[in-house]
Amino acid sequence: MGKGQAMETALKASNAAKAGDVATAIAVLRQRFGDRLQTGEAIRRQHANTITWIPNQPPDAVIWVETGEEVREIVEVARTHRVPLIPFGAGTSLEGHINAPFGGVSVDFRDMNKVLAVNAQDLDCVVEPGITRKQLNEHLRDQGLFFPLDPGADASLGGMAATRCSGTNAVRYGTMKDNVLGLKVVLANGELMTTARRAKKSSAGYDLTRLMVGSEGTLGVITELTLKLSGIPEAISGGVCPFPSVEAACNAAIATIQSGIPVARIELLDELQVKATNLYSKLTLPEVPMLFVEFHGSPAGVAEQSERFGEIADDLGGGPFEWTTKPEDRTRLWQARHDAYWAGRGLRPGVQVIATDVCVPLSRLAECVTETQREIGAHGLVAPIMGHVGDGNFHLTLLVDMADPAEVKAAKILCERLVERALAMDGTCTGEHGVGQGKMKYLAGELGAPALAAMAAIKRSLDPDGIMNPGKIVAVE
Amino acid sequence: MGKGQAMETALKASNAAKAGDVATAIAVLRQRFGDRLQTGEAIRRQHANTITWIPNQPPDAVIWVETGEEVREIVEVARTHRVPLIPFGAGTSLEGHINAPFGGVSVDFRDMNKVLAVNAQDLDCVVEPGITRKQLNEHLRDQGLFFPLDPGADASLGGMAATRCSGTNAVRYGTMKDNVLGLKVVLANGELMTTARRAKKSSAGYDLTRLMVGSEGTLGVITELTLKLSGIPEAISGGVCPFPSVEAACNAAIATIQSGIPVARIELLDELQVKATNLYSKLTLPEVPMLFVEFHGSPAGVAEQSERFGEIADDLGGGPFEWTTKPEDRTRLWQARHDAYWAGRGLRPGVQVIATDVCVPLSRLAECVTETQREIGAHGLVAPIMGHVGDGNFHLTLLVDMADPAEVKAAKILCERLVERALAMDGTCTGEHGVGQGKMKYLAGELGAPALAAMAAIKRSLDPDGIMNPGKIVAVE
Repeated sequence: MGKGQAMETALKASNAAKAGDVATAIAVLRQRFGDRLQTGEAIRRQHANTITWIPNQPPDAVIWVETGEEVREIVEVARTHRVPLIPFGAGTSLEGHINAPFGGVSVDFRDMNKVLAVNAQDLDCVVEPGITRKQLNEHLRDQGLFFPLDPGADASLGGMAATRCSGTNAVRYGTMKDNVLGLKVVLANGELMTTARRAKKSSAGYDLTRLMVGSEGTLGVITELTLKLSGIPEAISGGVCPFPSVEAACNAAIATIQSGIPVARIELLDELQVKATNLYSKLTLPEVPMLFVEFHGSPAGVAEQSERFGEIADDLGGGPFEWTTKPEDRTRLWQARHDAYWAGRGLRPGVQVIATDVCVPLSRLAECVTETQREIGAHGLVAPIMGHVGDGNFHLTLLVDMADPAEVKAAKILCERLVERALAMDGTCTGEHGVGQGKMKYLAGELGAPALAAMAAIKRSLDPDGIMNPGKIVAVE
Repeated sequence: MGKGQAMETALKASNAAKAGDVATAIAVLRQRFGDRLQTGEAIRRQHANTITWIPNQPPDAVIWVETGEEVREIVEVARTHRVPLIPFGAGTSLEGHINAPFGGVSVDFRDMNKVLAVNAQDLDCVVEPGITRKQLNEHLRDQGLFFPLDPGADASLGGMAATRCSGTNAVRYGTMKDNVLGLKVVLANGELMTTARRAKKSSAGYDLTRLMVGSEGTLGVITELTLKLSGIPEAISGGVCPFPSVEAACNAAIATIQSGIPVARIELLDELQVKATNLYSKLTLPEVPMLFVEFHGSPAGVAEQSERFGEIADDLGGGPFEWTTKPEDRTRLWQARHDAYWAGRGLRPGVQVIATDVCVPLSRLAECVTETQREIGAHGLVAPIMGHVGDGNFHLTLLVDMADPAEVKAAKILCERLVERALAMDGTCTGEHGVGQGKMKYLAGELGAPALAAMAAIKRSLDPDGIMNPGKIVAVE
């Protein structure tokens, strides 16, 4: 069955369900939640995919929840009436994770954003899923602590866990799988499951925490997170370093990792992305491939690391590496890096933006990026590239005029070929965006039929009625 | 149903199965594997639990496998005849993981110990499950790489993954969950599953790698591992530091972690353990609580870190911290640390050794260790303590005269109370040994009924006939 057909079948099922159960479920939930349940079209559309070319598939209703117990009540109603539930954090996901292809109820966590505990001595905290990373770091700053993951968007922590997100700091601090100590999750049977306690490590049974991280709401709804925290580094140094080619920049990243320098961030911007960034952020960087680099540690440590990185860059024909420990200079640069997505958009205002990512073994990174650049050029497309290259992970910001069918077709071919290329290099179809709807078709090619069958078996075992964010990650009969 | 009853029922089921299916399965497998299948009693007993007080429950046969395809064939036979399979690595597990309470076939990976690939640029390698960590590090040394996990015993990598092991380096390099990139696993349905590709990170679907790591052979049999590697540090400094009390030593560990010093190892030995180590390793350490500490990095980095640790120790009444970068001196000390288990045994030669561990949030560590010491004293038991205290994880080496029923009873109470204490402090019943048979009874108390039900549901979904190492981690009807 092709993708189009599958979508059509799904939509029919959705319409069928709407006629019966959803109306009853919404009536019951409206009784309970009053004005906190909304069914207006604008609100429903805002709670489905809006920022990529995946079609907007709105839920039937949206509820703003305030407690985990409320989530449990909603699950009970959903289970009784076999209605899909779609958890909603900040709505910044990119692969249609928040769409409602079978209709159902969107559960909005905006108002569940409390910090429940900060255990400074243990370097951990307990939060509700709706808190965003900026809100959390604002809360933590006075205690000299921070939550290091930085996906660019001001995503919610619940959403970050659900999509196994990472970002610019992952090369040093790991991804969400490494920074979630434990979760509370409402399962499809209405039970509240604790996945782990606060010990820093445990070998007590199946790793339910890691099973839930990255499950995109398809196995349960996260209602509480215990997160690892890090101390704000004593010193931070950072700067930018130009390179004669993307290849030289990637090789500098590889050499940095291999030589054991504990780089905190090492971000590639290709020529076009640098140009976009200069325009958007009013910088005057040379328009060549650039690495944005940052080191965390003691003052002596970050100075030593910065110098060693400068030597590596020099050996590869790059540089000069201009670095500083002055917060104002660093902040300006990293603000520009964080605005790279918006800068990219600025290259062709008004067109559709497709943000996609892949991740490959480090040794294949330069080849993967340069081949991708070549293909972008061959199609005459506009697509700046930036990447978390210490992890072998990079992003395309494809700018597509949806009114031009030939361009849309070329963009689709480019995206398909990008994934094929990454898989041929033993990489993954997504380093940090997740599968959602958009990348379901690639999973079998990446992991094979036995892994997909195992995922489907796990999905059925924990969600036999298929009410938990159906139509994402893995298809279940 | 009490534990005794459960065991009895299990044994009946086992005997029933033996009468029928196992005999046929063994006949079929003998035809295929010839002399590589053995049924002699001594061999069978060696392939069941031998090193703790958990009873020895031998399998019906042992097969030495040589390829993943052979494992697949064995699973097919086991499935047809509903016979349990128990994977066997180096046999160093501590909680009865390799016992065969329902009989069945032990699959010994000793001869599947090849390094299939070393991807030096990517800092990863692909190995067969039977390779031990010492064999692997011997292989890697010439390339300047090492696999950092160090559980003390020369365990097999397959077993280390299956039990989610960690060890002395985990505070810096993480546990097996952090160092396995992907696995090949033969599932109960006979399919060979790949859990992930070689990209350093991925958000493509459920985290099957982490689900398999720590599943103790109950969800499938690992036949290949892709592992993260680390560069051998440019410089290593290390030394020992005495403290006036266990509390001061634990507080020094906490302060070290909190101040962001990237310590590679930070190991507590209590007074009794130091005494045992002096005797066994012919050292003359002062018989007070000690931290063994090691730093990895650049020469300037490790010197700075060593000095900062010395200041922390001094502030807490400890020290002097004598450290060195000379390999021969460090090796002697760490050999003594690694021999701590044997040193502990030496305190009461001939008695039964019970090695058990818990892990608690760092802030509760000092309290947990000192309360445990107090209780050891109150019972008049002999039990040196050592711990990976940067993670909040510590071990008891309980030395028990099994001929003395009062002592056995006291030891059992001590172990129960140790787990209760750890759980009351929001810790875990096992930091790195796993659940096996010995700690099944604690899981419900630690994680609650919904988590246990979820584990059972996952187990049933991937192993409906219960042939994969049954009777471990979670009971399934």
